[in-house]
Amino acid sequence: MSGEDAPAQQQNAVDQKQETKPAEEPKAEPPKTESAPAAAAEADATPAAATEKVPEEETFTYRALVLTGHGGYDKVKLQVKKGKPTLKAGEVLVRVKACGLNFADLMARQGLYDRMPSPPVTLGMECSGLVEAVGDKVMVLNRFGLWQEVAVVPASHTFLIPEGMSFEEAAALPVNYITAYMMLFDFGNLRPNQSVLVHAAAGGVGIAATQLCKTVKDVTVFGTASASKHETISQGGVEHPIDYRTKDYVEEVRKISPKGMDIILDPLGGSDTHKAYNLLKPMGKLITYGTANMLAGQKKNLLAVAKNWYHQFSIHTLSLIQGNKSVCGFHLGYLDGEMELISQAMNTILDLYKEGKVKPHIDSTWHMEQVGDAMRKMQERNNIGKVILTTEPMPEEEKKEEPKKEDKKDDKKKDDKKKDDKKKDDGKKEEKKDDKKKEEPKKEEPKKEEEKKEEAKKEEK
Amino acid sequence: MSGEDAPAQQQNAVDQKQETKPAEEPKAEPPKTESAPAAAAEADATPAAATEKVPEEETFTYRALVLTGHGGYDKVKLQVKKGKPTLKAGEVLVRVKACGLNFADLMARQGLYDRMPSPPVTLGMECSGLVEAVGDKVMVLNRFGLWQEVAVVPASHTFLIPEGMSFEEAAALPVNYITAYMMLFDFGNLRPNQSVLVHAAAGGVGIAATQLCKTVKDVTVFGTASASKHETISQGGVEHPIDYRTKDYVEEVRKISPKGMDIILDPLGGSDTHKAYNLLKPMGKLITYGTANMLAGQKKNLLAVAKNWYHQFSIHTLSLIQGNKSVCGFHLGYLDGEMELISQAMNTILDLYKEGKVKPHIDSTWHMEQVGDAMRKMQERNNIGKVILTTEPMPEEEKKEEPKKEDKKDDKKKDDKKKDDKKKDDGKKEEKKDDKKKEEPKKEEPKKEEEKKEEAKKEEK
Ligand SMILES: NC(=O)c1ccc[n+]([C@@H]2O[C@H](COP(=O)([O-])OP(=O)(O)OC[C@H]3O[C@@H](n4cnc5c(N)ncnc54)[C@H](OP(=O)(O)O)[C@@H]3O)[C@@H](O)[C@H]2O)c1
Ligand SMILES: NC(=O)c1ccc[n+]([C@@H]2O[C@H](COP(=O)([O-])OP(=O)(O)OC[C@H]3O[C@@H](n4cnc5c(N)ncnc54)[C@H](OP(=O)(O)O)[C@@H]3O)[C@@H](O)[C@H]2O)c1
Repeated sequence: MSGEDAPAQQQNAVDQKQETKPAEEPKAEPPKTESAPAAAAEADATPAAATEKVPEEETFTYRALVLTGHGGYDKVKLQVKKGKPTLKAGEVLVRVKACGLNFADLMARQGLYDRMPSPPVTLGMECSGLVEAVGDKVMVLNRFGLWQEVAVVPASHTFLIPEGMSFEEAAALPVNYITAYMMLFDFGNLRPNQSVLVHAAAGGVGIAATQLCKTVKDVTVFGTASASKHETISQGGVEHPIDYRTKDYVEEVRKISPKGMDIILDPLGGSDTHKAYNLLKPMGKLITYGTANMLAGQKKNLLAVAKNWYHQFSIHTLSLIQGNKSVCGFHLGYLDGEMELISQAMNTILDLYKEGKVKPHIDSTWHMEQVGDAMRKMQERNNIGKVILTTEPMPEEEKKEEPKKEDKKDDKKKDDKKKDDKKKDDGKKEEKKDDKKKEEPKKEEPKKEEEKKEEAKKEEK
Repeated sequence: MSGEDAPAQQQNAVDQKQETKPAEEPKAEPPKTESAPAAAAEADATPAAATEKVPEEETFTYRALVLTGHGGYDKVKLQVKKGKPTLKAGEVLVRVKACGLNFADLMARQGLYDRMPSPPVTLGMECSGLVEAVGDKVMVLNRFGLWQEVAVVPASHTFLIPEGMSFEEAAALPVNYITAYMMLFDFGNLRPNQSVLVHAAAGGVGIAATQLCKTVKDVTVFGTASASKHETISQGGVEHPIDYRTKDYVEEVRKISPKGMDIILDPLGGSDTHKAYNLLKPMGKLITYGTANMLAGQKKNLLAVAKNWYHQFSIHTLSLIQGNKSVCGFHLGYLDGEMELISQAMNTILDLYKEGKVKPHIDSTWHMEQVGDAMRKMQERNNIGKVILTTEPMPEEEKKEEPKKEDKKDDKKKDDKKKDDKKKDDGKKEEKKDDKKKEEPKKEEPKKEEEKKEEAKKEEK
C-alpha cells in the first residue's frame, strides 16, 4: 500500500501540495467539452470545500461516470463535478488514469447490486492512477466511486503499481485477481494434482483464476465459455474448454472426470449452484461468488431474478457431512473491513506478477464517453478478459466516428423511457456484432512488452 | 501402508503361512474362557471357510465385541467366533492388540450411526496389531468390525506403526488424527495467527485437533470442556478453556475475540451449528462433523434426536456470500472410497509423530470384558483423550474385582428390556464417579517414555 504509514501528517502535505501544484497531470485535465448536465453535489463525492476559499479550488472540475437511476446503459452519464475534493485523515487524492469495468457494475446499473448506494452515485470499484501528493503510481480498490478523473480514497485502499505494469493492467488487476486468489487459495486451498471448474473462463475473474491455477503443479482447469473464446482460453491454460451454450457442461465434465471436481468456482448462482454441488468430489469445495444468471437484458429482468431466487441454493449440514463437501461464499464487496487480508492477497499476487506468472488480459479500452458500449461488450458476452475505461480525453476525430452500432440511439437523454427490447439484448442473439470494434492503441509500451514476452515464449518451445 | 503393493501374490503367501503357522502371537491366543453365547456366523465376519477342510482352521476361535441390537451398554456382547477367516485378494489378517473407542460406536449402539450395518455386527473402526503373514505392526482403519482378536481387512486400510509407538497409541491415532487433520488442513486451511474453536477439546478428536493447531505458528485455540478437564487441556495448548456447562461459550469467545473465529470445529450439531456459523469471522470456516447433541442417555433419546433435527442447520448461498463464510461437512465414515487422501493425511501425521509434535493422549485402557464401562466413561463425559480396549486376556484376580459401579446390573442378559433410566445416564449428574477407576499398567515402556518427555519439557522451561 502507498503512504499509509503516517496518514495524518502526510495528509497535511497533500493538502499543501494541492494548493500550490494544481495541474500535476496535464493529460488528465478535464477537457470540459463532453458533458451531460452536471450533477449537483452527490452524497458519495465530497462536495467543494466550503471552508477553503481559494478560487482555484472552486473552479476545479473533473469528469465522473454517474449512475443516475436503475436501468439500461443510458443510465450511466458522464457528468462534470465542480470543486476540488478535500481529504480526511488517512485519505489520498488520486488522479485516475484507467478504470476496470466489473460485472457488478452491470448489476448495479440494474439495481441488482446491494453494495452500491442508491443513485445518483459514481460507479467504479477499481482504478489506477497517481497519488497527487506524492506521485506514487497506485491501483485502487473501493466499494464504488472510482470512475472519475479525481478520486479520494483511504490510503489503505491503494496498492503501489510495480515496475513495468501499465495503468490499464493496474486497473484490471485488483478485483479479478484478489477475488480469484482468495477463492482458490483461502477457501479452495488449491493443491497439486487437483481439478478446478472455472465458469466464464474467458472473463476477467475467469482468466485470473486460470492463471492462478497454473501457479500450482499439475492442476487441471475445466472452463466454460462461448465457443469463440476457446482458442484464447486454451492458450491461457484451460485444458478442457466447454461451450456451455451448446452442450451440457455437467455431462462434459463427467465424461472427462467421472468423479467430479475438487474445486468449482460458481459466479452464476441459481440452478448452476446445485449442479456445481453435485459435481464435487469428496472433500471438494464449491465457492459461489455471483449471480450472473440474474442478468438478462439491459434492464432488470424480473423473471431472471425470480428464477434465481427460486433456485437459490440452501444446504443442510447433513448433506455436507455425508458428502464431505464444502460450500463457501465469497464477496469482495463485503470484505471492505478486511483490508489486511486483502493486502496479503495483493502482495502475493504482485509477487506472482513480478515473476511473470500472472498478467491481466485486457479485452479493450474505452473512453469515458463510451461507457455504454463498454458495458454492452461485457453484458453481451463478447469480452475476453478485462474491459477498461480510460480517462484520457477522446480525440475529436474519434468523436465524429462516434460511439458504435445501434448504441447511438440510446446514447442521449432517454433516461426513463421503458424502451428496452430484452430480446435484442439477451446476449445470445447479438453476439459477434461487436467483433469489428476498433481498439485504440493508446499506450504503445505495454503492448510491445507483451509481444516481446510472447515471442520469447515461442522461442522457448 | 503395509504390504499393499502386490496384493494378489502376497495373499497366497499369507494363506500358506496361515496353514503352517497358526499361532504366531501366543499372547493373542483366544483364552476360551470368557464367553457370552457365541453368535452364529455374522454377515460382516467371514464365516468359517467351508472349502478348506483343515481341522485346525475349524477349531480356530477368537473373541469379538458384537452389537446385538440397539440400546444400552449391555447390547454389546463379547462373543466367541469360530473358524479362521479366509482372505480375499488384497486383504490381510491382523492379530488385534488394541482398539480405539469412538463416539460413533456410542451412536451406533443407539442406532444413530448410519455407516454401521444393522445388528448383529462387530463394532470397531480402528485397531492396532500384527499382520499375521508378514509380522508388520500396523494400525487399521475400517468402517466397522475391528473390535475382535482377529480382523480381516484390505491391506490399503492398514498403516505401518512407526518405531517407538505403542499398540495403544497406534489404536488411538487413526480416527482422531485423520479427522482433525483433514478438517484443519484440508477444509480449514489453517494458517499462522488464526484462531480455532475446538469443542470437546479434552476428547479424542479435541486433543488431536489442539496438537495439530500447535504445529502452526501463533494459532490460538479456544476449547470447550467440562471444568475438571481444563488443567489438562491448558497444558496441551488450549489458550482459552471454556466450561460450556456453566457459561455461555459464545459470550466467552466474544469477550476474548470480538470479531469471532477463523475456524470452528463443530461435533455437536443442532443449535450449536447455528452458533458456530454466527461466530465466524469473514473468510471463516465452520466444519461440522458430528451430532453429539443427539446422544442423551443410554438408549436413543427421541427428544434429543428430534431437537437436533429441528435445529438442523441449512444455509443459503446468499448468506454465505454476504458473510464471506464457508461451511464444510466432514465424515471419515463416508471417505472409505478415498484411501489415497486418507493415506496422505496419515503420512503427514506420522511424520509429525516422529518429530514429537503430536502424540495420542490415552485416557484409559479396558479389557474386552469391560467394554460397557469403557463406553460409559466416554458417554458420561469423563474421558480425557482416548478410551482404548485391549485384547489381552483379563487376569483372574481382576475378574473377581469385576466390572465397576452400577454397571454390574446391566452386564448380563437384559438385552431387550426397556429398563433405561435416562436421567441417571444423562451424563451431567453422574460425573466424577468414575474418577477412581484404576487403570492397568499393562505396557510400562510407553508410559515411561511419556514421563521422560514431560520431565524434559519441564527442564526446558
Ligand atoms: N463476489 C465477488 O467478490 C466477485 C468479484 C468479481 C466478480 N464476481 C462475479 O464473477 C463473474 C464474472 O465477473 P467479471 O467481472 O470477471 O465479468 P466477465 O467474466 O469478464 O464478463 C462476463 C462474462 O461472463 C459470461 N456470462 C455468463 N453469464 C452471463 C450473463 N448472464 N450475462 C453476461 N455475461 C455472462 C460471459 O462470457 P461467456 O458467456 O463466454 O462465458 C461474459 O463474457 C460475475 O458473476 C461477477 O458478479 C464476483
Ligand atoms: N465425522 C467424523 O468423521 C468424526 C470422526 C471422529 C469423531 N467425530 C465426532 O467427534 C466428536 C468427538 O468424538 P470422540 O470420539 O473424539 O469422542 P470424545 O470427544 O473423546 O468423547 C466425548 C466427549 O465429548 C463431550 N461431549 C459433548 N457432548 C456430549 C454428549 N452428548 N455425550 C457425551 N459426551 C459429550 C464430553 O466431554 P466434555 O463434556 O467435557 O466436553 C465427552 O468427554 C463426536 O461428536 C464424534 O461423533 C466425527
